Amino acid sequence: MKKRIITLGEVMLRLSTPGHHRFVNANSFEAVYGGAEANVAISLANWDCSVAHITALPNHEIGDAVKRYLSSSGVDTSYLQFSPGRMGLYFVENGAMQRSSKIIYDRFDSVFANFDFSKLDWEQIFQGSDWFHWTGITPAISASAAKVCKEAVLAAEKLGVKISADINYRRNLWQYGKQPMDIMPELIRPSHLIIAGLTDFENCMGIQTDNYEEACQAAKEFCPNLAYVSTTSRKSISASENKLKGKLWNTETFLKSKSYRMSHIVDRIGGGDAFMAGLIYGLLHFKDQEAIDFAVAASVLKHSIPGDANLVSIEEVNHLIKGENVGKLLR
Amino acid sequence: MKKRIITLGEVMLRLSTPGHHRFVNANSFEAVYGGAEANVAISLANWDCSVAHITALPNHEIGDAVKRYLSSSGVDTSYLQFSPGRMGLYFVENGAMQRSSKIIYDRFDSVFANFDFSKLDWEQIFQGSDWFHWTGITPAISASAAKVCKEAVLAAEKLGVKISADINYRRNLWQYGKQPMDIMPELIRPSHLIIAGLTDFENCMGIQTDNYEEACQAAKEFCPNLAYVSTTSRKSISASENKLKGKLWNTETFLKSKSYRMSHIVDRIGGGDAFMAGLIYGLLHFKDQEAIDFAVAASVLKHSIPGDANLVSIEEVNHLIKGENVGKLLR
Amino acid sequence: MKKRIITLGEVMLRLSTPGHHRFVNANSFEAVYGGAEANVAISLANWDCSVAHITALPNHEIGDAVKRYLSSSGVDTSYLQFSPGRMGLYFVENGAMQRSSKIIYDRFDSVFANFDFSKLDWEQIFQGSDWFHWTGITPAISASAAKVCKEAVLAAEKLGVKISADINYRRNLWQYGKQPMDIMPELIRPSHLIIAGLTDFENCMGIQTDNYEEACQAAKEFCPNLAYVSTTSRKSISASENKLKGKLWNTETFLKSKSYRMSHIVDRIGGGDAFMAGLIYGLLHFKDQEAIDFAVAASVLKHSIPGDANLVSIEEVNHLIKGENVGKLLR
Amino acid sequence: MKKRIITLGEVMLRLSTPGHHRFVNANSFEAVYGGAEANVAISLANWDCSVAHITALPNHEIGDAVKRYLSSSGVDTSYLQFSPGRMGLYFVENGAMQRSSKIIYDRFDSVFANFDFSKLDWEQIFQGSDWFHWTGITPAISASAAKVCKEAVLAAEKLGVKISADINYRRNLWQYGKQPMDIMPELIRPSHLIIAGLTDFENCMGIQTDNYEEACQAAKEFCPNLAYVSTTSRKSISASENKLKGKLWNTETFLKSKSYRMSHIVDRIGGGDAFMAGLIYGLLHFKDQEAIDFAVAASVLKHSIPGDANLVSIEEVNHLIKGENVGKLLR
Amino acid sequence: MKKRIITLGEVMLRLSTPGHHRFVNANSFEAVYGGAEANVAISLANWDCSVAHITALPNHEIGDAVKRYLSSSGVDTSYLQFSPGRMGLYFVENGAMQRSSKIIYDRFDSVFANFDFSKLDWEQIFQGSDWFHWTGITPAISASAAKVCKEAVLAAEKLGVKISADINYRRNLWQYGKQPMDIMPELIRPSHLIIAGLTDFENCMGIQTDNYEEACQAAKEFCPNLAYVSTTSRKSISASENKLKGKLWNTETFLKSKSYRMSHIVDRIGGGDAFMAGLIYGLLHFKDQEAIDFAVAASVLKHSIPGDANLVSIEEVNHLIKGENVGKLLR
Amino acid sequence: MKKRIITLGEVMLRLSTPGHHRFVNANSFEAVYGGAEANVAISLANWDCSVAHITALPNHEIGDAVKRYLSSSGVDTSYLQFSPGRMGLYFVENGAMQRSSKIIYDRFDSVFANFDFSKLDWEQIFQGSDWFHWTGITPAISASAAKVCKEAVLAAEKLGVKISADINYRRNLWQYGKQPMDIMPELIRPSHLIIAGLTDFENCMGIQTDNYEEACQAAKEFCPNLAYVSTTSRKSISASENKLKGKLWNTETFLKSKSYRMSHIVDRIGGGDAFMAGLIYGLLHFKDQEAIDFAVAASVLKHSIPGDANLVSIEEVNHLIKGENVGKLLR
Repeated sequence: MKKRIITLGEVMLRLSTPGHHRFVNANSFEAVYGGAEANVAISLANWDCSVAHITALPNHEIGDAVKRYLSSSGVDTSYLQFSPGRMGLYFVENGAMQRSSKIIYDRFDSVFANFDFSKLDWEQIFQGSDWFHWTGITPAISASAAKVCKEAVLAAEKLGVKISADINYRRNLWQYGKQPMDIMPELIRPSHLIIAGLTDFENCMGIQTDNYEEACQAAKEFCPNLAYVSTTSRKSISASENKLKGKLWNTETFLKSKSYRMSHIVDRIGGGDAFMAGLIYGLLHFKDQEAIDFAVAASVLKHSIPGDANLVSIEEVNHLIKGENVGKLLR
Repeated sequence: MKKRIITLGEVMLRLSTPGHHRFVNANSFEAVYGGAEANVAISLANWDCSVAHITALPNHEIGDAVKRYLSSSGVDTSYLQFSPGRMGLYFVENGAMQRSSKIIYDRFDSVFANFDFSKLDWEQIFQGSDWFHWTGITPAISASAAKVCKEAVLAAEKLGVKISADINYRRNLWQYGKQPMDIMPELIRPSHLIIAGLTDFENCMGIQTDNYEEACQAAKEFCPNLAYVSTTSRKSISASENKLKGKLWNTETFLKSKSYRMSHIVDRIGGGDAFMAGLIYGLLHFKDQEAIDFAVAASVLKHSIPGDANLVSIEEVNHLIKGENVGKLLR
Repeated sequence: MKKRIITLGEVMLRLSTPGHHRFVNANSFEAVYGGAEANVAISLANWDCSVAHITALPNHEIGDAVKRYLSSSGVDTSYLQFSPGRMGLYFVENGAMQRSSKIIYDRFDSVFANFDFSKLDWEQIFQGSDWFHWTGITPAISASAAKVCKEAVLAAEKLGVKISADINYRRNLWQYGKQPMDIMPELIRPSHLIIAGLTDFENCMGIQTDNYEEACQAAKEFCPNLAYVSTTSRKSISASENKLKGKLWNTETFLKSKSYRMSHIVDRIGGGDAFMAGLIYGLLHFKDQEAIDFAVAASVLKHSIPGDANLVSIEEVNHLIKGENVGKLLR
Repeated sequence: MKKRIITLGEVMLRLSTPGHHRFVNANSFEAVYGGAEANVAISLANWDCSVAHITALPNHEIGDAVKRYLSSSGVDTSYLQFSPGRMGLYFVENGAMQRSSKIIYDRFDSVFANFDFSKLDWEQIFQGSDWFHWTGITPAISASAAKVCKEAVLAAEKLGVKISADINYRRNLWQYGKQPMDIMPELIRPSHLIIAGLTDFENCMGIQTDNYEEACQAAKEFCPNLAYVSTTSRKSISASENKLKGKLWNTETFLKSKSYRMSHIVDRIGGGDAFMAGLIYGLLHFKDQEAIDFAVAASVLKHSIPGDANLVSIEEVNHLIKGENVGKLLR
Repeated sequence: MKKRIITLGEVMLRLSTPGHHRFVNANSFEAVYGGAEANVAISLANWDCSVAHITALPNHEIGDAVKRYLSSSGVDTSYLQFSPGRMGLYFVENGAMQRSSKIIYDRFDSVFANFDFSKLDWEQIFQGSDWFHWTGITPAISASAAKVCKEAVLAAEKLGVKISADINYRRNLWQYGKQPMDIMPELIRPSHLIIAGLTDFENCMGIQTDNYEEACQAAKEFCPNLAYVSTTSRKSISASENKLKGKLWNTETFLKSKSYRMSHIVDRIGGGDAFMAGLIYGLLHFKDQEAIDFAVAASVLKHSIPGDANLVSIEEVNHLIKGENVGKLLR
Repeated sequence: MKKRIITLGEVMLRLSTPGHHRFVNANSFEAVYGGAEANVAISLANWDCSVAHITALPNHEIGDAVKRYLSSSGVDTSYLQFSPGRMGLYFVENGAMQRSSKIIYDRFDSVFANFDFSKLDWEQIFQGSDWFHWTGITPAISASAAKVCKEAVLAAEKLGVKISADINYRRNLWQYGKQPMDIMPELIRPSHLIIAGLTDFENCMGIQTDNYEEACQAAKEFCPNLAYVSTTSRKSISASENKLKGKLWNTETFLKSKSYRMSHIVDRIGGGDAFMAGLIYGLLHFKDQEAIDFAVAASVLKHSIPGDANLVSIEEVNHLIKGENVGKLLR
């Protein structure tokens, strides 16, 4: 029986300068679509889960293109909403060597930010679902986005659907008059799994500590259903070379993944979402240690693939975990 | 002595699907910059006029790229304004055969629309200038854009700078609560040259007639400085083949250009701006008949060039007028 | 209520030389997927019909890519079959001017040609379906392909599903030891709609006549359910300029479409399939004359789009029929 | 028995702006190699003649690339000479519509212009050869190039090898202190076939007349071996549409080809060389009328192919002559 | 006096996804030609040996393209055979970081596999030749390919031509009913040089040992003419970083190359063939230690070049061996 | 108050093979413009200095393109000279791994080399200027280039403008009959800053020593205004990985920068010019240690950017110096 996962969040058009060109002399942009939650949806659909993504899109051809894009990975698009308005965008300049990568966001006032999702029947959507995934980006965008997020979380909790929250605090969002602490705690409270670092804990849950385990314990006290807290740690040697590892707290102990040296990085955007998807998949199908190992290895492989989506198979992730076929030529 | 021309208007990032690909399966977009008034500025600068363009741009790398783009054609960028906010965009799908070309605009709430230009010293700007050019797009965008347009027009009138107004009525703009008839008449009134069709006359000046000469006469009554009215007529046989001609009313008579068959069109966007620039250049340097001939021939050549800007020389326009070198291989 | 259509046939990887390059100096190939019947399926799915395509694909990444491709247009892929083996291919060299376009097929011994479809439950597949579409390419490929085609046709007939047959006789196929006349008549017999020219009638139904109406009458005598016969007529002035028109015989009279001059052709492959899809859509939703008009206009627009698939909307087809927006720039 | 043809002339690196981009905003150049005589050599080698091309090239990688390029078409490269120095270049901007195409030459002081060919053993080279082809470009380049041309022509005459001379007068060349009339007459004198228009006759043979037949007669008087004079006539409707026809004087009568309308031109450079090659091939294998028909049809097809070389088969040329398969899709 | 080398084997069309794109989202494929033995031929021809490659190709344009490709490197194509049928293909997905590279072969039932080479006159072919090279891929493809391989090997032995055999055991081939041990031993027996690893020895010669020297000794006993055995050792740190070294057994001792760290790998396909070519060249021109050093350095440089062929000069290989100019900018 | 810098030197068209392709199989070249001194000018203009570059260019479209290119970075182009003639060129093949990068120069006999700059009014040019920069490439090109360089240097000295000389000795230049020691000493004598290595000191100043400090002291004795000597040290591990550091002698002491490991190099051409620009900027705005740190960090970042020009901001250089944001993803 396939696992059923529901994801909610904005999908944007990502426009990247080709190769290592800078914004100021780009004559073209490579176009893909992406969004933290949709990236998770695509990973899970590629791994043969049943996944529906919920978002709102402009009712013009570029909105249609997002539908085609999600459909191509087998994501259920029956809950997509279309309405007049603009598409959120972001521009990407790929760094190289010591030079940073840059994102210029242009996502305010999008169809997603303005959409009234009140006609969605969340109980019907969650019928038969195993998991609901959201991120802290959604409630940061607009009051109406925060509202739909809250409705979804409460409905999921009511129906016993497990909830994962990728806190993902970004100061530059949150421009509609609310502060994270006004909104986030009640959204996070019903979570089964939280992805958070110390900054996220502090800004979105008011947990001030330099000790990650203390933060987890404090989160557990606040979140009655909390079963897992997880985070990754990335060291940027250069834009082309990073180190990555992850850890998972299962309320009892910390499970740690191997640390991977990632050299010759192709595209690091979506690396966190690949981890998230790997962790959801792992917790739905594997033991805890296997889950964190799977999540980190999935994230590592994402860095070798252009675009937001992590087009790797379960078999490829498992090979990396076992150290098999690494970088070989498979005939 | 070089002629000095001032232009005012938004510059947008234009994102075009490659070749004849449709929006729904575009994997990249070709990027150029464009805007009706900036396109005019670039033509005139290429023809060795002294041209300054006035606009407001985001204070990030893509705003910088616009500055570089205008500078590369020799447009004076010293009045460019930079501020936080977004860049106006438009997406283009090039038609072919009977299939139409399409533009999806995404220009609302841009830096230009929101910018407070009140610190500009228009009298200083117009010092030594011969001509000021604006279009009906600017007052349609926002109250502040309409305001700066009004200030510019009044200052130009006061200093005896000739004014050209490309009425360019677009119903889809005008979303900030004002109607064209609330704003446009007083902006148009001081014009020396108006580019308008019957629809423009009706919607922006309240002149209701099916007779173009009557419309011109009515405009002349309303505009004390009016010396010229002009328009082009385009027949679309297909996206790849159009016919184009122009006419110029000099308050006494109608001067007509030759009609050109344009087959194998490369890019028709900016064709009207190329005409506009040709007419300004012509009226500043030539006799009336030569001016309209120059304007139409410049516009025809624009259709052979990718991008918004009309990168043709005065010599090339003159060759086309005389029927010399047409489509030849020049060694 | 959406119409439900089932299509059956091989999908191939199409590899086209870029621009107008010849095979002998191609350094890359543009890759799309295509097949006569899948092209019909995609058109109908784009027009919001419920369409399932049935085929067999290699169980490797390129087979997966076909699934993604069909899914992206909303085609139901639940009946796709995967098995070890090779993908059928065809190489395309786009002509220009007087130079012909060329196809080199490399489709023998493909997974589709060798697949044993006997486990398919055709009655279940046709449950609730309105139409079944097949072409004469399938029975020409292999004995097993002819067998599945026969099973499908007979099941459709039994369940009262309307059947369209695009005869599409190609002498170069038919290499497995059977002649068209051994196989085709019984497959064609239950048809509701036949697309055929005189060569098709002669080779696949044994109807020898130079009079198209006579051929139609003879077909009607042989096919008890036959309601329509249709064909297109194409005149190639050059690879870049064709004329196209269509006609439809509804057992009583011949309905003729307008003749379109198609200049500046972008890609003519799939033009016939676009006609076929337009005719199926038209006969399911419109009156007879509207149906043939829709089919031809849809085919004309296909010629403006790169790739096999006809990515145009119903609205665009209708605009062309009415002569609206033809080749315009729509803002 | 294959015909053996020797050609002599400079090969240059051709750098073309992509698509319809202008020189001023080209970010890349497409690179092919070309030269009037080498283009002829390649055509003839593609048509299964035995062809050796003689030239001098820089002894660096770009010179090597020319050798690889000629070899790939089967041209015998054993007489290629390598030496330090520069490669001749030319930059091409493809016109479109009424806009002309442009060539910027950068060929002075090349290895070919400076090379001392005196060690070549022309008698050995012409052993077993049927034809020698040169053009008026070579003696225009430098004194040493004129010298090798003269040595070749005299050796060919001595050995009874037929000589074709494509006069191809270009005023911009001839910068080394000699005038065409100082050099050309003695080079032209031994010709079997001359390609020339009235301007060529006037400038390179001193034949001043507006009557083409008179010019031919005058040439015949001067050239004792002259058997044929030929020329093409091109009408440029636009850069994308030309008309082309050719005629051949066989000392008795004028044979004329059909006139072809060439619309949707891809690349007209090399069109004259394709005619030349077609005429040599035709005169070596066919009757006179067939030869001129073959030459013009070959030239027409060249216009559909990117690059200098005419990559078409004899079969394709013959199909065009007969009006078969014109612009069709061949499966 | 140039060395003359004969190579025999299939040439395939290689279709690679661009950059680091995966098969499932490739919109184009880069096209080159390659085959283990032809890759060797091209290396040797680039190094100014006289090389003829023998293969069979489809008699259509893509077969012609292979001829052009081999000719461009100066490989003698006079023994190429053309016949109706298909071209063998392989699809390549370039890995990156820890992600493996992948090849999907589609080579069964090709013209080469089916061709009857019995009309080849091997004695004539080997006249004046110094070396014959074949690989274990050929006899694995089909009975007729095994047959021509046997004929060639026996003729070479008879005429005293040195033979190199790259065993290259691949389990996925060998589908025509024979086992390697049925065929390979008698083909390997006359070898002068064998490239083999332990798996190759076991599967193709029945030599079972974990000791490479023992394997060499056993091979020597079986092969009376055997003078050399060689192999490379590759360590894959990632798809982008490998280590490579080689060794050569000259029946007396093991000569070892330096071990190279290869970071920033561009294309590793053809790396083994570059080694093979280097070794043949080395053994024909240098002392044993120099030969193995040359072979490994040639292979290292191949990894920096896109495509199957190793386009490096002898001088470049020698510079690497000496550690001169490594990675410098040469002006 | 912006600093005013004048630069003098040739600008060339740089033609680079795409990706890691070799010259022999390049089908296109990426085109940018570059020249040692213009690269410095662009860096300084990007850092908001007032910079005028002086050169001579062909009076055709490619000369115009250079003007556009310099203008786009804000370089003052009012002293550009245009004249008939050729553009200097250089071809670039990007190395990878152990394979070297290669430059083929084709710059002789260019407009710059031949131009008579005697009408330039150097006193007017230097009015209000702070710095003049030249390199040893200019006097190496031609007698007239050496002459203008001398005039400029003497005028700068007279007006008290600081002079920097990048000695940059290249043996392959200097082909017009003069030796460096005939020309260079008097040009170098008035320098404020010299960039030189031991080879430069020896060949252009006659200072023979292996001790860099001794060389500096000797230079100081010869150059009365000398305040600084500087150089960089580069270690090439491979074409993709280098180490770089720099040092600055301020007549009292040696200041050394950090040593940077540069892996994943994108384009090293222009790295030295980026250092030069950084040092000029640093010495004009910062303390000595900060200046050398700034210069080396600017050079490191250049290696991450395609093209000759160093498109990085002061802020980015400062971040690298402080180790902030290195290789991060900035949102």
